[in-house]
Amino acid sequence: MASGVFDIIHTGHISYLEQAKAMGDELYVVVACDDTVRMKKHEPITPESMRVRIVNSLKPVDYAILGKSGGDLFSILKDIEPDIIVLGYDQNFDEDDLQNNLNDRGFHIKVVRATKYGEDLTATRKIIQKIVKRNGGEKQ
Amino acid sequence: MASGVFDIIHTGHISYLEQAKAMGDELYVVVACDDTVRMKKHEPITPESMRVRIVNSLKPVDYAILGKSGGDLFSILKDIEPDIIVLGYDQNFDEDDLQNNLNDRGFHIKVVRATKYGEDLTATRKIIQKIVKRNGGEKQ
Repeated sequence: MASGVFDIIHTGHISYLEQAKAMGDELYVVVACDDTVRMKKHEPITPESMRVRIVNSLKPVDYAILGKSGGDLFSILKDIEPDIIVLGYDQNFDEDDLQNNLNDRGFHIKVVRATKYGEDLTATRKIIQKIVKRNGGEKQ
Repeated sequence: MASGVFDIIHTGHISYLEQAKAMGDELYVVVACDDTVRMKKHEPITPESMRVRIVNSLKPVDYAILGKSGGDLFSILKDIEPDIIVLGYDQNFDEDDLQNNLNDRGFHIKVVRATKYGEDLTATRKIIQKIVKRNGGEKQ
């Protein structure tokens, strides 16, 4: 299982999902719903229905699922029952904390972190900065 | 065979490629190289290598190929030998002119146009406008 916002797909996302797929048989991807994105990061550029559709169109992905509002990780884990959770290299989770938390709750799930993809311009933030700069927006 | 710039993948691209795939056995996609994009449209946001990699990661796509600088369609057709060329619904080609041109040159290729995908925010231009507006760029 992998997860993320996936707002404007870039090669960092592809690398992350390919790494996750290579670790198991089937890859489930939880796409954060618009409410969760607003609470944690910012207003999404593309709405949740499109983000799910695009992630579902990527070769490494078997099932893209919209996350629930409020984002309770543990209730989703009961639905999906993954063997492995793969975190993105820049995802804001402490691996050990998450692993301990899962163990304490009786889940038999291994937490793994993906490695960084080497190319530049991999983050959505950088793409947005490039667009804004070119169109006369605020300075970086 | 389908073709395009594919700079920031959106659901309109996915729909186009799914329609193209459904018309044949294997889908080849020619991704316009950076030089061609600069000549015809604008500076690409994402470089050609990333655009090819992302298109290659989409389920309907069997082979994504970087177009040649100068963009000679007919030389690419000799390499790929497609049975069908599927144009995007908004691609700036006259179908009949292209079909006649191909017939005159002895190609046995059918030209078909994909239909428009119903959702809003399907064009890269709209995504860019949304980003710029939100970040204090020029007025629309």
